[in-house]
Amino acid sequence: MNGIVVQKYGGSSVSDPERIRNVAARIVDAHRSGRPVVAVVSAMGDTTDHLIELAHQISPRPPRREMDMLLATGEQVSIALLAMAIQELGEEAISLTGAQVGILTDGIHMKARIQEVRTDRILRELEQGRIVIVAGFQGITPGDDITTLGRGGSDTTAVALAAAVQADRCEIYTDVDGVYTADPRLVPDASRLEWISYGEMLEMASLGAVVLQPRAVEYAAQYGVVLRVRSSFGDGPGTEVRGVSTMENARVVVGVTHDRNVAKLVVVDVPDRPGVAHRLFAALAAEEINVDMIVQTTKARQVTDLLFTVTRDDLARSREIVDQVARELGATTVQDDASVAKVSIVGAGMMSHPGVAARMFGALAEAGINIQVISTSEIKVSCLIDATQAEEAVRRVHKAFHLEELAPEGARDPLLP
Amino acid sequence: MNGIVVQKYGGSSVSDPERIRNVAARIVDAHRSGRPVVAVVSAMGDTTDHLIELAHQISPRPPRREMDMLLATGEQVSIALLAMAIQELGEEAISLTGAQVGILTDGIHMKARIQEVRTDRILRELEQGRIVIVAGFQGITPGDDITTLGRGGSDTTAVALAAAVQADRCEIYTDVDGVYTADPRLVPDASRLEWISYGEMLEMASLGAVVLQPRAVEYAAQYGVVLRVRSSFGDGPGTEVRGVSTMENARVVVGVTHDRNVAKLVVVDVPDRPGVAHRLFAALAAEEINVDMIVQTTKARQVTDLLFTVTRDDLARSREIVDQVARELGATTVQDDASVAKVSIVGAGMMSHPGVAARMFGALAEAGINIQVISTSEIKVSCLIDATQAEEAVRRVHKAFHLEELAPEGARDPLLP
Repeated sequence: MNGIVVQKYGGSSVSDPERIRNVAARIVDAHRSGRPVVAVVSAMGDTTDHLIELAHQISPRPPRREMDMLLATGEQVSIALLAMAIQELGEEAISLTGAQVGILTDGIHMKARIQEVRTDRILRELEQGRIVIVAGFQGITPGDDITTLGRGGSDTTAVALAAAVQADRCEIYTDVDGVYTADPRLVPDASRLEWISYGEMLEMASLGAVVLQPRAVEYAAQYGVVLRVRSSFGDGPGTEVRGVSTMENARVVVGVTHDRNVAKLVVVDVPDRPGVAHRLFAALAAEEINVDMIVQTTKARQVTDLLFTVTRDDLARSREIVDQVARELGATTVQDDASVAKVSIVGAGMMSHPGVAARMFGALAEAGINIQVISTSEIKVSCLIDATQAEEAVRRVHKAFHLEELAPEGARDPLLP
Repeated sequence: MNGIVVQKYGGSSVSDPERIRNVAARIVDAHRSGRPVVAVVSAMGDTTDHLIELAHQISPRPPRREMDMLLATGEQVSIALLAMAIQELGEEAISLTGAQVGILTDGIHMKARIQEVRTDRILRELEQGRIVIVAGFQGITPGDDITTLGRGGSDTTAVALAAAVQADRCEIYTDVDGVYTADPRLVPDASRLEWISYGEMLEMASLGAVVLQPRAVEYAAQYGVVLRVRSSFGDGPGTEVRGVSTMENARVVVGVTHDRNVAKLVVVDVPDRPGVAHRLFAALAAEEINVDMIVQTTKARQVTDLLFTVTRDDLARSREIVDQVARELGATTVQDDASVAKVSIVGAGMMSHPGVAARMFGALAEAGINIQVISTSEIKVSCLIDATQAEEAVRRVHKAFHLEELAPEGARDPLLP
């Protein structure tokens, strides 16, 4: 089928009946322009948070399979209401859950990964002239258990569907009108990017820019799905996320991100034996906890401190595991600290431009901000700092790289000669 | 598998986390007594009403397929929370939606009928020692669309499951401790029945006693499933619903019911031609609207008035259809009245005891209550009266048949010599 458009609408775009009608109108516009439309929708507003709260009133650590059973209802409500709103506008629409579409995932509840997307039901409905509304964030295992894809999983649903039905376009509608060089709420003169590469977007998303889920970007890169991030409230062009030609790939730094969903753990006085780090991180990996920054400090002969970060959401579970492993290893003590934040710069051009990291450290030093941990990759530099200084840090670093001047595509990069 | 118990818990039994924990404890008790337990659960409290309200904010007449998609989330939330609460008590539990169980229905959305119940998944889970929690009220069509079974459909789910897994017991937990000779909120001295026959229960349920859904009773009679209606808050024996031996079948009247979910329609001055009634009622039937009492009054040569009742929920839809058919038939006008109620007496013994209907009419007449329509069957007499007089009517009729003296099983019936 030709010309299919996949549109994804986040929770804030469908948070009440009024907004659902607004989204319905946009979808109907696209449909009336002659394109088959598949819309992927998240749960309304803070529904997911309410459901989590309800579960916690029953159980401090609810079984993950049942959490997925519970959370999947959020999107099911949105798709039904959106299909109603579209039919109210006179077009035929049909809502489908993840299970009904056939979004098959592995069995890792609450963080499931998509393994296969069936297209027969969607294509059959589109061929009958219907608008298809799909519940984001959810799938089903081959054994018929409901799963969810983790935070922001609806983006991944949209990209996976776009790849599966070979859509012409994949539009991610959100409450901002594109990807910015920094969060405009913190940095009022942040610039909107006309485009960003998959690699840069992946780092931006991983480092705290909430516009897109990292896994969705990864998936888009893998299948060559061109994304467009747009506002569901305006008509701006948004930001395109795509592969890059070498000519375009000239911007040194495209953005500054900050992430408060970080917590630090320190295992103090671990015996400095081979296999110690493996023991600890294998135990965390076994519980599907992602460890981010890791620093090992040798303090004296035969003991070291092991410092690492996890998401704040994972802190309680991590602490339990780390306490036990630390006891077994004979470490003195374990400390944790949730009052940290990670500030990062991202840009594919920094590979070929030395001095970028130094400029960032300088900007932080000037502001009297202490760097607790540094981690770098080819296209990003991250610094762990005190959470209370995060906003100031973003503004200082944004300024240091003149990102307010990062003009639309084709303009000269301020860091280039 | 031997000794399976099916328990059904209504919405008021799981209306908040506290009550969900209470239900979990009851289920765990049954499980620990060594029986495999399947629990069927409704949506929490007034969730379904809230969802309907939400839909009406989007569309005055939401498409029925999408209503089912929306409403089915209510039970999905309850089963997840109940499974969590049971696991919190240390037993293994697994929740299953109607689709996951394989409760196959026809495609009449919002009033679907169960056609087949698959048992393999349930039995597999029970064999692994798990408590199985099933979403009531919902099913799936062979084409994979979610359906709901209509008002009180969770009872039907429980009975259908009990029949399918050949359960030893089917217990219906509700907020009353059994079936009463009248609604105890209206008639404080109403008596609890030790048992009631399928036929009587069916009439009681059809006529407004809300303890059981008529279709569930019908299904139970068809498959010989013995039901026990009990309170989820106490430990009383409740009321057994079952077939009867002739010896027991000696009670003339077992209960007085009232139903306010009734509305009256009158088509005035319909030409008195053959096929007129068929034309009208076929149009209503095509929209799945059940017509209850029907009276045709011949007023003058060649014109008649056609009076009938529908549920109040169906009034708006019915009126649209009736208006159109009335125009086509050349009727003068259509009137409707939602301020009516139906008061009925039920009892298998009235077949062989003349004078029962007369005693009811007498009691109403004494109280100055005007009867608008009468309808009778072998085991019930119903009178349509003004809604404001319903409570008084129930009390008067209950008194007239001395139902407050209807003692437990085996006692002499007050109407017998």
